Amino acid sequence: MAETMKALLKPRAAPGLELERVLIPSVGPHDVLVKVKATSICGTDLHIFRWDPWAQGRLKPPLIVGHEFCGEVVERGTEVSDVKVGDLISAESHVTCGICDMCRTGHGHLCRNTKILGVDRDGCFARYIAIPAINAWVDPPGMPPEIAVLQENFGNAVHTAFTADLRAKKVLVTGCGPVGLMTIAVAKAIGARSVCATDVSPYRLKLAERMGADMTLNAAKDDGLVKKVLQATEGEGVDVLLEMSGAASALRDGFTVLKPGGEAALLGLPGKPLTFDFDELIIFKGVKVHGVVGRRLWETWYQARGLLRAEAVDLAPLVTHKFALDNYEEAFALMTSGECGKVVMIP
Amino acid sequence: MAETMKALLKPRAAPGLELERVLIPSVGPHDVLVKVKATSICGTDLHIFRWDPWAQGRLKPPLIVGHEFCGEVVERGTEVSDVKVGDLISAESHVTCGICDMCRTGHGHLCRNTKILGVDRDGCFARYIAIPAINAWVDPPGMPPEIAVLQENFGNAVHTAFTADLRAKKVLVTGCGPVGLMTIAVAKAIGARSVCATDVSPYRLKLAERMGADMTLNAAKDDGLVKKVLQATEGEGVDVLLEMSGAASALRDGFTVLKPGGEAALLGLPGKPLTFDFDELIIFKGVKVHGVVGRRLWETWYQARGLLRAEAVDLAPLVTHKFALDNYEEAFALMTSGECGKVVMIP
Amino acid sequence: MAETMKALLKPRAAPGLELERVLIPSVGPHDVLVKVKATSICGTDLHIFRWDPWAQGRLKPPLIVGHEFCGEVVERGTEVSDVKVGDLISAESHVTCGICDMCRTGHGHLCRNTKILGVDRDGCFARYIAIPAINAWVDPPGMPPEIAVLQENFGNAVHTAFTADLRAKKVLVTGCGPVGLMTIAVAKAIGARSVCATDVSPYRLKLAERMGADMTLNAAKDDGLVKKVLQATEGEGVDVLLEMSGAASALRDGFTVLKPGGEAALLGLPGKPLTFDFDELIIFKGVKVHGVVGRRLWETWYQARGLLRAEAVDLAPLVTHKFALDNYEEAFALMTSGECGKVVMIP
Amino acid sequence: MAETMKALLKPRAAPGLELERVLIPSVGPHDVLVKVKATSICGTDLHIFRWDPWAQGRLKPPLIVGHEFCGEVVERGTEVSDVKVGDLISAESHVTCGICDMCRTGHGHLCRNTKILGVDRDGCFARYIAIPAINAWVDPPGMPPEIAVLQENFGNAVHTAFTADLRAKKVLVTGCGPVGLMTIAVAKAIGARSVCATDVSPYRLKLAERMGADMTLNAAKDDGLVKKVLQATEGEGVDVLLEMSGAASALRDGFTVLKPGGEAALLGLPGKPLTFDFDELIIFKGVKVHGVVGRRLWETWYQARGLLRAEAVDLAPLVTHKFALDNYEEAFALMTSGECGKVVMIP
Repeated sequence: MAETMKALLKPRAAPGLELERVLIPSVGPHDVLVKVKATSICGTDLHIFRWDPWAQGRLKPPLIVGHEFCGEVVERGTEVSDVKVGDLISAESHVTCGICDMCRTGHGHLCRNTKILGVDRDGCFARYIAIPAINAWVDPPGMPPEIAVLQENFGNAVHTAFTADLRAKKVLVTGCGPVGLMTIAVAKAIGARSVCATDVSPYRLKLAERMGADMTLNAAKDDGLVKKVLQATEGEGVDVLLEMSGAASALRDGFTVLKPGGEAALLGLPGKPLTFDFDELIIFKGVKVHGVVGRRLWETWYQARGLLRAEAVDLAPLVTHKFALDNYEEAFALMTSGECGKVVMIP
Repeated sequence: MAETMKALLKPRAAPGLELERVLIPSVGPHDVLVKVKATSICGTDLHIFRWDPWAQGRLKPPLIVGHEFCGEVVERGTEVSDVKVGDLISAESHVTCGICDMCRTGHGHLCRNTKILGVDRDGCFARYIAIPAINAWVDPPGMPPEIAVLQENFGNAVHTAFTADLRAKKVLVTGCGPVGLMTIAVAKAIGARSVCATDVSPYRLKLAERMGADMTLNAAKDDGLVKKVLQATEGEGVDVLLEMSGAASALRDGFTVLKPGGEAALLGLPGKPLTFDFDELIIFKGVKVHGVVGRRLWETWYQARGLLRAEAVDLAPLVTHKFALDNYEEAFALMTSGECGKVVMIP
Repeated sequence: MAETMKALLKPRAAPGLELERVLIPSVGPHDVLVKVKATSICGTDLHIFRWDPWAQGRLKPPLIVGHEFCGEVVERGTEVSDVKVGDLISAESHVTCGICDMCRTGHGHLCRNTKILGVDRDGCFARYIAIPAINAWVDPPGMPPEIAVLQENFGNAVHTAFTADLRAKKVLVTGCGPVGLMTIAVAKAIGARSVCATDVSPYRLKLAERMGADMTLNAAKDDGLVKKVLQATEGEGVDVLLEMSGAASALRDGFTVLKPGGEAALLGLPGKPLTFDFDELIIFKGVKVHGVVGRRLWETWYQARGLLRAEAVDLAPLVTHKFALDNYEEAFALMTSGECGKVVMIP
Repeated sequence: MAETMKALLKPRAAPGLELERVLIPSVGPHDVLVKVKATSICGTDLHIFRWDPWAQGRLKPPLIVGHEFCGEVVERGTEVSDVKVGDLISAESHVTCGICDMCRTGHGHLCRNTKILGVDRDGCFARYIAIPAINAWVDPPGMPPEIAVLQENFGNAVHTAFTADLRAKKVLVTGCGPVGLMTIAVAKAIGARSVCATDVSPYRLKLAERMGADMTLNAAKDDGLVKKVLQATEGEGVDVLLEMSGAASALRDGFTVLKPGGEAALLGLPGKPLTFDFDELIIFKGVKVHGVVGRRLWETWYQARGLLRAEAVDLAPLVTHKFALDNYEEAFALMTSGECGKVVMIP
């Protein structure tokens, strides 16, 4: 095996990324080495690229970035038994400790010692990556790499949609980035009576329709979004809000049209404190709110797999662009524009 | 308005029913009078027809039988405000007291003082029926009577399927009588990854496929039902059992193929005590079991409505036969044969 | 029976209240007439007294105020069967419609047509009050009036504490007004491992200890409240936050010391929008938040009764002051000062 | 360290046990070696002693038996970081695989590859035992060994009591063996309004009172157990059944007095199939039933610890007898008699 490989690095504490040759990672007793078949770009990668305050506070360069990928297991550690060489795998990007109180009580996604691939340890925008075998999720043989690569991100959508009871309910999805778009499809697949989706991008609202939204509203153009949702629900409001945008207005409007006794799941990150009316929007309404981060380990993966195998969700329309890893600058520029679904890079 | 009407009665404590002319019921202050558009026959009606031990112990003839119907409100009591004359309605057949501990704590379907239409008070196999306005469920104007009439029974299916978490799960439905068949459709609509259905009637297994079953097994022919389900689930078993038959073998086989940690909902009535291995089938497996009766008041009705309005469930294939009320003997004979889906009678 | 009675009125749209003679209310077919034995003052009554913006927007004077009371049934309507003349009763203050979607789906406390006693219709600061029989909660014969009167308010505490799983959990109660104090007792009674209580009043922190708090912190004096709670929990934080104060700092500090994966129940009303960090305090933590209003109809009443009959909660220490209704000005002044537990008025 | 140790063995496939000298176990990279301070005898050990059909089918002698113990860590494997030499620990007896579908989805107690200490691999009735570090539960320094040893078994009680909502509920505990007795204490600690306990042994019914039962009934003497429970609950029945005996009559009587809409948790093993009326006891009642086995990994341990640290449960009265391991025959004879609480053996 070649001793070095090409990898996309954050080489130093500054904006931008660089392609460099680095050593192929070695494999510990509990690890597998994966030859990467496909990767995809997450919003988190954009924060790292731009070197925003969050990234500055968290990353310790040099570091290979990227955490969404699939590939083939080419080597495994001495203590690995469940994953085999030749397996096609996707991966959970949170490497958890397994022994803290969170891990031990069903909250592994909130592990107090999590290391995230491409954030806290080397990531996947490279020819090879070594990960703990427990983080490998074996895919069925025929799964196309551009679908397999999406599963980690799809897990966010599944986690969000599964926190609330959507069965026969009217659902509002605010925010049609890739995770929001996948959430629309999940909501429909698990019995939502109707899904209304909002965003500011006509491109993404089109995608929302393809993913199954019954109604879309442009939050930038349509003033009176609250009024329109109320009209569409005979004045009653929606049963469930799935907030995927992090926009302050989406959060407020979303709760405004939420029924008393309803449920809200929040995945989008506002990025800073915002002004919010707890009296009117949460307490008097008697609603339940779920903060959502990561994926439940590993229920969410089983749920995601079940939906994909049943063909209840089709992720194909989401993969709007593919690039070679060498053209990463183009890929990141496109992601920044927002005129895309999911952007895949092939190393 | 005519002072008498034709009605199908249990005239005395003996097998059979008779068509007779009786007085049109009068309307109390909280009641509505409904001109019946369609009725359907439930398994309970067969028990009453045959005058089996349960019926002998419960009914006090003379009584108009039948509890599944839809119709038009033609008169309302002085204190009724939410239901209007001209409304098309279906009806909840359990008339509950509203003040017992069950009614007051979200268990209205288990009311200690329930009176069931067509069992404890006059029913719907007639030109008119008077019911409390609270039991009337207003249907959308265009709903076909042969669909509207099914909603009460559909509620049993919805109640059963909603007790467990079916999302992305492998589900076994044992028993493809009308409620079992509707349950298949509900399970698929609310996200079941796959539904396997069993019955002894090839006719009903065909209907099961039409309602969305991914796999059907004839419990009479296929010995090795347990083995076949295990094979189809890669040896793991199903996540959820929905027992709709009341057959002892279905109960045992169903629990046998249920995964550890799984859920079972039981609606089918065995009719007598049976031998059951609690150690192997419930305790060692750590499963959760839900006894299911009636419909949750009124969550189930809202859920049922949501599924129908979203067109997530299509009940039309179930209505296999229609009769005039005058031909009730033919209708009951067909129901007894089992070579039918839902049998509708028009008064 | 005397035709008039003394009652405490909001006579016109202005601050203050007045004692006047008014007609004894008449009794509708579904109502009971109650001779009031004891009343207590709620924070809501202070808002009405002061005639603050909320009160100005909601009340339509003239109106008898007050909604916490107990008394003896002295007359009942023609259709009332479950409550009897001579019964000692407490009362649910929310008169709900019973037919809206909220009422029909287990959310009666969020009824879209609620009328609150002493707010939307005549209240209890009077010799007599007429209420729907369904709102009467029959007390055991020997229950002291000053305990019986507290049950409505106690229900808020029970509702709040029961929304989260407190069993073997570390609980923080922010705010030791009467409802906060009762919530401490409920939390201990249903298995909280420890309860830490905060307030700004030394008087109320003393009462908190009497109600069972394991630790109290003065939020005004103790800077470093966050630090102290973290120290007391070995750096882990609390499992559950019960926010009973409505103070912006309590909300923020409370969520700050809440564990990842924890639960928060919010009953205290901030009264205006506030700045809040959803990223750090809800989303990254993956917590669940419950907005709490009123009492669940009628589960909360059953739960409250169970706790009282088991003597798992003792409300007696809370009744710190009693006044004759004639001395209402003194009673309201004391409530405003905060140097009290629950203030009872005898009409 | 001495190279051999005394251990209580099942030396061959036959009834009885033998004390022998065996090698002190060696420690793998993920293991800890524990010097045993105290052990206790479980019902499972009696099955093994007697060599009943279950034991014959499961055990592969020679094997050191016993799975309830506490001790001091005296050595740890190279990869162990969280448990330290000198730690006092109790232990979870189920050694799970961590990678099967059960382990990965929050059902570790139902792991498809569980190895139980003293059943499938060497147990604790010995001077030393080696266990995976993940199975070690670090106790607070001052905890008495005769309490620390009980925690594994206490976990069964906690798991059972925590499956249902006991808050302000009337609870029936059928069966007052050690786990049943602990369950009584847990039920009271987490808010049960009242606990009625049944058994056939006056000795154990006395202990039941000491553990907090509000009422005890001798199932052997008191005919009319059903009647007595109904009388004590004003004809309503109990809200929750916790079945800890495995007796067929307890199962039937328990469900008979269970309220409609109630919950039952089943831990006691009938040992063979029994005749049961699903119609009357589960379906018409609309009850929920939980099969309970083992302890939830590791929520149950956290819950158990919380109850003990809060001193909400006192296990001391349960430890009725202590023996040196050398006197094991006496200890097992006492356990068989049932005239004891928990029997502790010191190696």
